[in-house]
Amino acid sequence: MNSAKTAITPTRAQNFAEWYQEVIKAADLAEHSPVRGCMIIKPWGYGIWELMQRILDAKFKETGHQNAYFPLLIPLSFLEKEAEHVAGFAKECAVVTHHRLETNAEGRLVPSPDAVLTEPMIIRPTSETIIGHAFAKWVRSHNDLPILINQWANVMRWEMRTRLFLRTTEFLWQEGHTAHATSEEAQQETRTMLDVYADFAQNHLAIPVIKGEKTAGERFPGAENTYTIEAMMQDGKALQAGTSHFLGQNFAKANEIKFQGNDQQERYAWTTSWGVSTRMIGAVIMAHSDDDGLVLPPSIAPNQVIIIPIARDPADVALVNEHCQKLAKKLRGIRYLDESIRAQVDTSGKRGGDKFWDAVKKGVPLRIEIGKREIETGTLTVYRRDQAPKQRETIAEDAFVQRAPELLKEIHASLFARALTFRDSRTRELSSLDELTKLFGSDENALGTFALAHFDVRAENQPDIVERLKSLKLTTRCIPLDAERKPGRCIFTGNSTDARVIFARAY
Amino acid sequence: MNSAKTAITPTRAQNFAEWYQEVIKAADLAEHSPVRGCMIIKPWGYGIWELMQRILDAKFKETGHQNAYFPLLIPLSFLEKEAEHVAGFAKECAVVTHHRLETNAEGRLVPSPDAVLTEPMIIRPTSETIIGHAFAKWVRSHNDLPILINQWANVMRWEMRTRLFLRTTEFLWQEGHTAHATSEEAQQETRTMLDVYADFAQNHLAIPVIKGEKTAGERFPGAENTYTIEAMMQDGKALQAGTSHFLGQNFAKANEIKFQGNDQQERYAWTTSWGVSTRMIGAVIMAHSDDDGLVLPPSIAPNQVIIIPIARDPADVALVNEHCQKLAKKLRGIRYLDESIRAQVDTSGKRGGDKFWDAVKKGVPLRIEIGKREIETGTLTVYRRDQAPKQRETIAEDAFVQRAPELLKEIHASLFARALTFRDSRTRELSSLDELTKLFGSDENALGTFALAHFDVRAENQPDIVERLKSLKLTTRCIPLDAERKPGRCIFTGNSTDARVIFARAY
Repeated sequence: MNSAKTAITPTRAQNFAEWYQEVIKAADLAEHSPVRGCMIIKPWGYGIWELMQRILDAKFKETGHQNAYFPLLIPLSFLEKEAEHVAGFAKECAVVTHHRLETNAEGRLVPSPDAVLTEPMIIRPTSETIIGHAFAKWVRSHNDLPILINQWANVMRWEMRTRLFLRTTEFLWQEGHTAHATSEEAQQETRTMLDVYADFAQNHLAIPVIKGEKTAGERFPGAENTYTIEAMMQDGKALQAGTSHFLGQNFAKANEIKFQGNDQQERYAWTTSWGVSTRMIGAVIMAHSDDDGLVLPPSIAPNQVIIIPIARDPADVALVNEHCQKLAKKLRGIRYLDESIRAQVDTSGKRGGDKFWDAVKKGVPLRIEIGKREIETGTLTVYRRDQAPKQRETIAEDAFVQRAPELLKEIHASLFARALTFRDSRTRELSSLDELTKLFGSDENALGTFALAHFDVRAENQPDIVERLKSLKLTTRCIPLDAERKPGRCIFTGNSTDARVIFARAY
Repeated sequence: MNSAKTAITPTRAQNFAEWYQEVIKAADLAEHSPVRGCMIIKPWGYGIWELMQRILDAKFKETGHQNAYFPLLIPLSFLEKEAEHVAGFAKECAVVTHHRLETNAEGRLVPSPDAVLTEPMIIRPTSETIIGHAFAKWVRSHNDLPILINQWANVMRWEMRTRLFLRTTEFLWQEGHTAHATSEEAQQETRTMLDVYADFAQNHLAIPVIKGEKTAGERFPGAENTYTIEAMMQDGKALQAGTSHFLGQNFAKANEIKFQGNDQQERYAWTTSWGVSTRMIGAVIMAHSDDDGLVLPPSIAPNQVIIIPIARDPADVALVNEHCQKLAKKLRGIRYLDESIRAQVDTSGKRGGDKFWDAVKKGVPLRIEIGKREIETGTLTVYRRDQAPKQRETIAEDAFVQRAPELLKEIHASLFARALTFRDSRTRELSSLDELTKLFGSDENALGTFALAHFDVRAENQPDIVERLKSLKLTTRCIPLDAERKPGRCIFTGNSTDARVIFARAY
């Protein structure tokens, strides 16, 4: 392959949205299904999700949560209980109305008119209402609190415009649901899980994230407060990668989750919910991948090391393969982040060049080539996915085996540093509406930017502000928790405020 | 607790079906949800399922399978493609007809008449059709075969009479789906996965199973052949605990899964599917539990050892608790079946007696009591869940720590042996219809039996035979694969056959 050519066409610079689709295709992560808006997650994509699940699940358990499972279907009457919640989800619900099919007079399979549900049900878009109903039965006294539950599940939100991983009608996620005796404890839980998400994004996905509070208009329907981790993609747009909601007593009141305190008084519980989804795979793709395909942080790479046997002479095949298998076994005996290194030999019938580019496009962190000459000299050739595809190093095999965990760590660190440098270079502090308008209004094709500016959050719904943001295609991403609080004037209203908000285009 | 009293009422002998529900309640495994026929799987029940998943998933991967994920919804037209398949599932499908809700003139939330799906969709009862559609796109040449896929998912079959774990409208399962170039290879796959299930049932669930072939009338809708593992419950009834289907070319033809062979000829692929579900939790309950509650085989027990601190004097609480935590840590450093022993201290505010009985009812394999005196003498008291609740042994703590894996192994072995002895005692070889009628027709409340008898499987649909079996509430469970093949006469038709079938009442 010519060095000027890229494995993925178009490149990021040419057309970021199409590049994204092509990276998914080239890495064989997922595909559109014949069911509108639903995706098929293929083994390589699902392998990434399994690793994400395993890491997060361990963190949830360490923080005292237990997994459980609640019904897929939710009766309409449940959704109706919380007014904001129903307003937020009613327009995108898949509705089950019948429980049987029959063949009609024309010989076609149709929903049976004799099997209409007395109450229609929706496929869960989220489970606050059905889980809240259960919590109400489980909680009697303060001794029953806190309840700390997580569920791994599929959910549906009927989307009109869909994109693999980023916005699909069905997606996979986890949803944590907890109930507490006090507001303080529930708020603490909300923040603890936000920290779990941020730690996961940074230390496993190698994505720097901004922890922040959503403005009221961007909150989860029914929440008192929504916290988010926001990440910047390589086109400068923001992606909300996880959210943690303090629900106050809204769902407790809607579902009658009450308990008797020490003082024999009956009180409503305080609840939270928090979730991340297969959307995170989209975030990983857009944060790290390049014009040659997917780039995976080692922690979530289904294979961390791919070994490609090179045997030009058919007589050498068995020898080289055997040697490669031994190396793979050695690597699996070594640990990275407390797990065996995931090393595989590419034993497919493909040509060496195809194996090489397959591994590039699939984002495998380390590629190894070994031929007869390398075996004789006790060396191997290493390629790192965070470097140019053909950049390589020939080193002693023993040294490589020993250095493998260090190399994986370096790759993680270099991906993180690159993403952080990029985000820093695309973040601006603004102090006037003019600056904002100039930045986002001038060049439609320019990379996005995170613009941090003072904002009077109470004015969020003012029609002129809504209109201006809409015309610039901007949303308020969050009020960063770690940003220095300093007084200033809202760039829209001129009112003084100490809250600064990130404005950005977003997925 | 009086020794004559049991923790569960009614007992197995008094009312097996009610005893089953009470065991689930006492162990806090699951409960009915407000959604008809759907269950809430609570943390202890879900913990068992997570362990089942982890063990099976490793076995699937060892045998070359990869996980993937396919859409929840299936268009009606997909179901129609395979005639037997649609006949088998049409009557129990949840049907999605709308994709939006709206508030009507009376202020009620209703499916929006403007958001009717052009083609209704069903919630998957199983995924052969949607996965077959994908396989057709993935397979071009023999190089693309075999495809070896597994999916962990929820499925729905609208059941009229439901029972926790055994028969619920929604359940969790795994469904393997594979495509092969030859019939032989697909048949081999079907048998390999049957063996995986049988190995899992026997070596992890401690349930002896009979591997067998289903008669035509009991096959999966659309299969050429269905293999099953059949287990005997403590009421003598059979429970089908897992099935593996050789689908021939039926689904390949329905979905156009074709490939070009070495000879450039286009051929249909051969497919299989195989699955086990949360039903297995029901099997574990009914195979092992007793009149004091759940009994769990150690391999799938979320806690294998529960340590109960006994501190009558409040001044001792901290000391005893600390000692117990140290012991738990020591045990977690020891391995059983290649994993750390799962040991927990019961630090709840409950009384010692309640902790003791909680652990009994939840089926924890080993219960440990430690008080100040035990600490001073370096001993502890051990109770095994496979023995009478109060039967105990006081042994040196060090000796216990060392023996723990052995004790867990012994418990597994004793549960398996007990179940096998029971099954053997309730299995009869019959040689006439009279014997069958007498056995099952005489006493409605008698324990069930596995009756092995010669049967002319071609006569299965003869109305008189169907009627007779129905009146005795019997079904043909399977033609055991391991039973000696010897010629004989069908107990119904008198025709000579070498096939013997197990007749039994079943879940």
